[in-house]
This record gives sequence, C-alpha cells and structure tokens, in this order.
Amino acid sequence: MTLAERPVIPAARFADRLERAAGATRGAGLDALLIGVGSDLRYLTGYAAMPLERLTMLVIPAGGVPFIVVPRLERGAAEAGVHTPIDIVTWDDTDDPYALAVRDLGVRRVGVSDTMLAMHVLRLQAVLGPAVEFSLASAVLRELRMVKDPDEIALLRLAAQAADRVVGQIAAGRLVGRTEADVAREVRERLVAEGHDEALFAIVGSGPNSASPHHEASERVIEAGEPIVLDIGGTLGGYASDITRTLWVTGADPAAGPDERFRHLFAVLQGAQEAATRAVGPGVACAAIDAAARAPIEAEGYGEGFFHRTGHGIGLEGHEDPYLVAGNELPLRPGMAFSVEPGIYLPGEYGARIEDIAICGDDGPIVLNEAPRGLYVVDG
Amino acid sequence: MTLAERPVIPAARFADRLERAAGATRGAGLDALLIGVGSDLRYLTGYAAMPLERLTMLVIPAGGVPFIVVPRLERGAAEAGVHTPIDIVTWDDTDDPYALAVRDLGVRRVGVSDTMLAMHVLRLQAVLGPAVEFSLASAVLRELRMVKDPDEIALLRLAAQAADRVVGQIAAGRLVGRTEADVAREVRERLVAEGHDEALFAIVGSGPNSASPHHEASERVIEAGEPIVLDIGGTLGGYASDITRTLWVTGADPAAGPDERFRHLFAVLQGAQEAATRAVGPGVACAAIDAAARAPIEAEGYGEGFFHRTGHGIGLEGHEDPYLVAGNELPLRPGMAFSVEPGIYLPGEYGARIEDIAICGDDGPIVLNEAPRGLYVVDG
Repeated sequence: MTLAERPVIPAARFADRLERAAGATRGAGLDALLIGVGSDLRYLTGYAAMPLERLTMLVIPAGGVPFIVVPRLERGAAEAGVHTPIDIVTWDDTDDPYALAVRDLGVRRVGVSDTMLAMHVLRLQAVLGPAVEFSLASAVLRELRMVKDPDEIALLRLAAQAADRVVGQIAAGRLVGRTEADVAREVRERLVAEGHDEALFAIVGSGPNSASPHHEASERVIEAGEPIVLDIGGTLGGYASDITRTLWVTGADPAAGPDERFRHLFAVLQGAQEAATRAVGPGVACAAIDAAARAPIEAEGYGEGFFHRTGHGIGLEGHEDPYLVAGNELPLRPGMAFSVEPGIYLPGEYGARIEDIAICGDDGPIVLNEAPRGLYVVDG
Repeated sequence: MTLAERPVIPAARFADRLERAAGATRGAGLDALLIGVGSDLRYLTGYAAMPLERLTMLVIPAGGVPFIVVPRLERGAAEAGVHTPIDIVTWDDTDDPYALAVRDLGVRRVGVSDTMLAMHVLRLQAVLGPAVEFSLASAVLRELRMVKDPDEIALLRLAAQAADRVVGQIAAGRLVGRTEADVAREVRERLVAEGHDEALFAIVGSGPNSASPHHEASERVIEAGEPIVLDIGGTLGGYASDITRTLWVTGADPAAGPDERFRHLFAVLQGAQEAATRAVGPGVACAAIDAAARAPIEAEGYGEGFFHRTGHGIGLEGHEDPYLVAGNELPLRPGMAFSVEPGIYLPGEYGARIEDIAICGDDGPIVLNEAPRGLYVVDG
C-alpha cells in the first residue's frame, strides 16, 4: 500500500462503533458517555474537532440515540467532520451548553472521555449535581479502541514506514556541529514531507542528554564521539507513528567510535528489545512483555538504568491502552498495537533506546517498523 | 524589536508569579492549586511540558512551598524546563503519582487548572475523597494572566507581525484552482518560516465555506469570483498570533469582482470592527466592546449573520480570558490582550470576518496587527 492509497474509515464503521459503545456503556452500568474533543470523538464519529474552550461534546445515552453538541459557529465544521448521521445540536455564545447537553438525560452514572478538559468536567459536575457519579470513558472505550481493525493497522503501518524513512534520512545527514533543536526541526519537516499530517515530537538527546528519556531537543551542539537517541513521531491519517533509534556519531574519526562499554550496553538493550518483541502473542499478559524486556537488562546489571515501562498502546493517540508495564495483567489480543521500547540510561553519561511499533498477530508479533534496529554508527 | 531580539521571560518573573498565585489562592479561600500540563504551568514556571498521560503537576499550597511532580523519565526535561528553583519530585511507572502529589496536603478546597485532563481530575478526586471541593484555577489565575507585562506584549507583537507577513504572502500568491487544504498547508509552513514556534490553525473558507466561521480547510477548489476568509495563527516564544482577513479572488477577470451586496456587507463589517476597536479603553466592560461591534451590524439588518462573540483574550493560549461577549461586565484594564473579530455570515452564500489582536492601553486601544484591514481584492 502506498500513501496515495491510504485507507479512509468508511461511514458505516462509525455507526458500528457508536452502537458498540452504547452497548458497552449499558454493560458497564453507566447511563451515558460524555465525549469531549479528542481521539475518542474522532474514533466514534470521525470528527477531529479543534480543541477549544467552547464545549463540543458527543453524548451517547446508554439506551437512546447519540447526538453531538457544538458551538453554532462550528456547525459547518461539525457537518463536514462528523461522518455518521447523528443530530448536531448547536448552542450560541450566550447559552449554557452544559445544561443543554445533559439537563434532560436523567443520568446517575456517566463516563467522561479521558482527555476532556477540567473546565468542562467541573461544569458538567456542577450541572448534574453531586449525586451523579463520574468515571472515565476509557473503562468502556478501551476495549473497543485497543483492538485495531485492518484499516487502522494499514494507517499505523504507513505512519511507521514514513517515520522509518525519516530515521534513514537523519542518519545519513550531517549531525556533528548542529544543535539538537536544529536537528529536531529537520525531523519535524521531514515527518510532514514523508506524509504525516503533522509532526508530534522529535526527541534528539545527544551525549549526556541521551540518558534523559524524554529530553527536549536543546541548544546543545552535537559532538563527534557520542550517542544520539532519536525518538520521533507524528500522525498520518490520524494514526500515530513513534520510533526510536540510537545513533553514534564519529565525525568520520575512526578513533571516535563507540567505546566498549556502550557497545555492550547497546547489545544488551537490543537483545532485550528482541526478547520482548518475540514474547508478543495472543493471551500473553502486558506485564509479561515488560518482564521479557527487563530480565536480560537486569541480568547484565543495568536494571537501575531501565526505569520506565516497556511500551504503550498506539492508535489515534500516541500513548493509549494497552500499557506494557509491571502489574498490568491484561492479556494481549490480535489487533492490539503498541510500542516495544526498552532503554538503558546511565545518568550523566549516556543512554540508548530502541523502539518499534508492533501489532499482536494471530501467532506472534507483527512489527511495523522496518528501519534497522542496530546501533547506527555514522560519520554524522 | 526583531525576531532575533525576542524577549525571554526572566527567572525572577516566575518566582514572582508563583508568589502572587499563592497569595491569590489564599485570597480565594482555596488550600492549593493543582496545575497540570498546559499554559498555566508554563506561565508559572516556564515549563512547556509535553501533554502526556503520565501525571506532571505543579502543586501550589496556599500557605506552603510549591513543588512539581513529574514522571522519573521526564526529570531531565523538567530540570531544563522549569525556570524557577522549586523542588522536582519524581515518580516511577509503578507508583501512584496522585497519592504522592496530594496525600499529605490536608486540603479541603483546591483549584485545578482549566486544561487538566479528566483522567487526572477524576483520579485526584478519588484520592482526595468527596469532601474535597474542586474548582477551576482560572478563578484565581485569570487575574494574573489577563494583564500582560511588557515582555509578553512584545512577544504578542512579534507573533502578530509574523502572522501579518503571512497574510501578505498568501494574498500575493496563487489561490484560484488550489484546494483550501493546499493553501492551509502553505499557511502553516509560512507561519513557521516567519518565526512561529508552530502553526496552530489555518482556516481557509472559500465561497460558501466563508459563511462557516470555524470551517476546516477542505478539498474544495477555490474559484474565481468568490471570497476567502483566511484566519490563521500559531505561537511565537509561546505566545499566540491570530489574524483574520477576507480576500476576494477575481482570477484576473474584471467581471469576477465582488458584487455590490458583498461590498456593502464588508463595509458594514469593517465599520463594526473599527467601532469595537475604538471602544477599547480602561474601565470599559468587555460586553460594551461586543455591543459596539454588534450595533452597526444590527442597524444594517445583518444581526442574524453575526452569531459569535466579538473576541477572546490571547496570550499563552490562543483563547483565554477576557472574553468580549454579551453578559461579561469585566472592565478592561491596561495590558489586557484580546482579539476584535466581528463577522457577518450568510449561510449557503458567503461571509466575511476581520480580526486584529489589540491591547488595552492607558488611553485606548493598541492594535498589534498592521496588515491592511480592507477587503483584499486579488487576482489570486
């Protein structure tokens, strides 16, 4: 599949998702889901609304007909964006949209979308009163959203391949003497040029910054003889990419290659990332994937240096369920999509991380990223 | 001032803001502010944290010492991003960060930042229990944030001028025969090229789409003989730009100029925008600015076609207090920054909007945008 052939989620899919969401809402003993702007709204209706302070909210009564409340000046955007035939109810700037949305629902227990903003949550709580119990809609929706359909997997694959190409381009280009921020700018431009809707992040951690997993690209100038952790991603057709590769820049100086300690650290890491990926399969607990990554790292004495979970789900959100973390006994199911990304960090010195996006297939892992996983020793 | 001389908010400013926030928290009878990722966090500490599902939260006890809770893997990012000397408390993926952050505070009334996500709000409510009352931190922070200091005004001005340049470039370029989405992509690239950190939005509403105020740029092809509402913005040094101009593309055909009705509509609109801007001054109620825009539009029979408020505050958020809307009796104070943006929309036909960013000065309005406000009749 090429970018030009990227799938579009058909309208009937949204109607099906809404129906399943209503059923799951009933099953969870909730009276309604209240879905603000964000990935839940896009998943259920196709509408990628702008995150603004005026209330846009999809209401899914457990036993009734879903509708969406939008500001009047966004009626046109909503009509174009909502890809399933539901009522669009508009409100004016002098109305109370919270009362309009929920006053007549007669609810006692509601689920609100996880990314709804506090300004909306607290106003809904005020309108509904203290007797109404609020919970997170993800308790209901994660079951639907975690398992990707073939169109979603195709979009995740296109996004992964676009990110792969950017990794290759960055590794082939000049790095030594440039700031991390400058490289990050190039990454963002290339992510869009390779087909992403937008770039979401570009972590460029060089030298000691490679030991800080969520380092922001800084004004530090990259030097020869040090590693770079490159962790980049964006969205394509709404679906997220997220890849990490570790580079070592030599500046074309044969004496500035990776030292033995780094080579060893990286070999352990790569073995751990492979072991975790191999462990993926239906019925395997998320925690077991995390453990599979952690065991070889701990065995080599780097346990303290791997201080984050092994992975996160991915889809319309860059981070979503399922999380590959100790304690999460959720069994993987075919169609689940997630990152596998152990890292080893020696604070003050350096670090490394390898990350792929993988799908749980019927018999094992399906890895979407195809960029080589080894250490990229480059002239830079 | 040039882009290269853009001001940086000094560290002492953050300490001052934190101190004033704690004082205002006490004054409002709250025991603490809980500030998630977003513009409040950036305003108070300088930290533009990534919006992720792991809890990052600034805690400002009314009578104690502020601290910030961050995921361990973001310690490096927090150390680099927090520009004021407060404690950084880290948590691991297997910890409960909500308990860690608030367990020992002994609070009864807290304010949470308006953009905190529901996933954090509900978990904080669960940890603190039903006896603890939650309200929005904006009740406390809007008083601080609404009035911009000279550095903030300088950044807003640089952002406005950068957006002005993009309007000029787009108006001078080819438009007829291109899709709205293609023009929007060009807008986004140019916003960044002109100095923005990132482009936030690019509304390109052509022909009948000009009657939809928050139209998303679509695959519609722009034709000669129709208007385009161009409403664009991004952030520069964290501060937002937001400008709207209305174009009419003729395709170089003298017969395809604006019809008399549109010229009249636009003249009424421009008069309204000027009247609202002239009305700006210390002590004038926000609602009075809205009324000043609405009166001339209603007098000409277009009242039904102006169905949104006249403006919104602007700063670290694209939309923030104060809102220029009927019912808001808040008096303007010097240093307040906001949009002045009436529009007239004839659904199914066409529409127009003019938007500037203005500051309330000591004696009247200070308009930051300098791009001409008249109808841009262009060959396109």
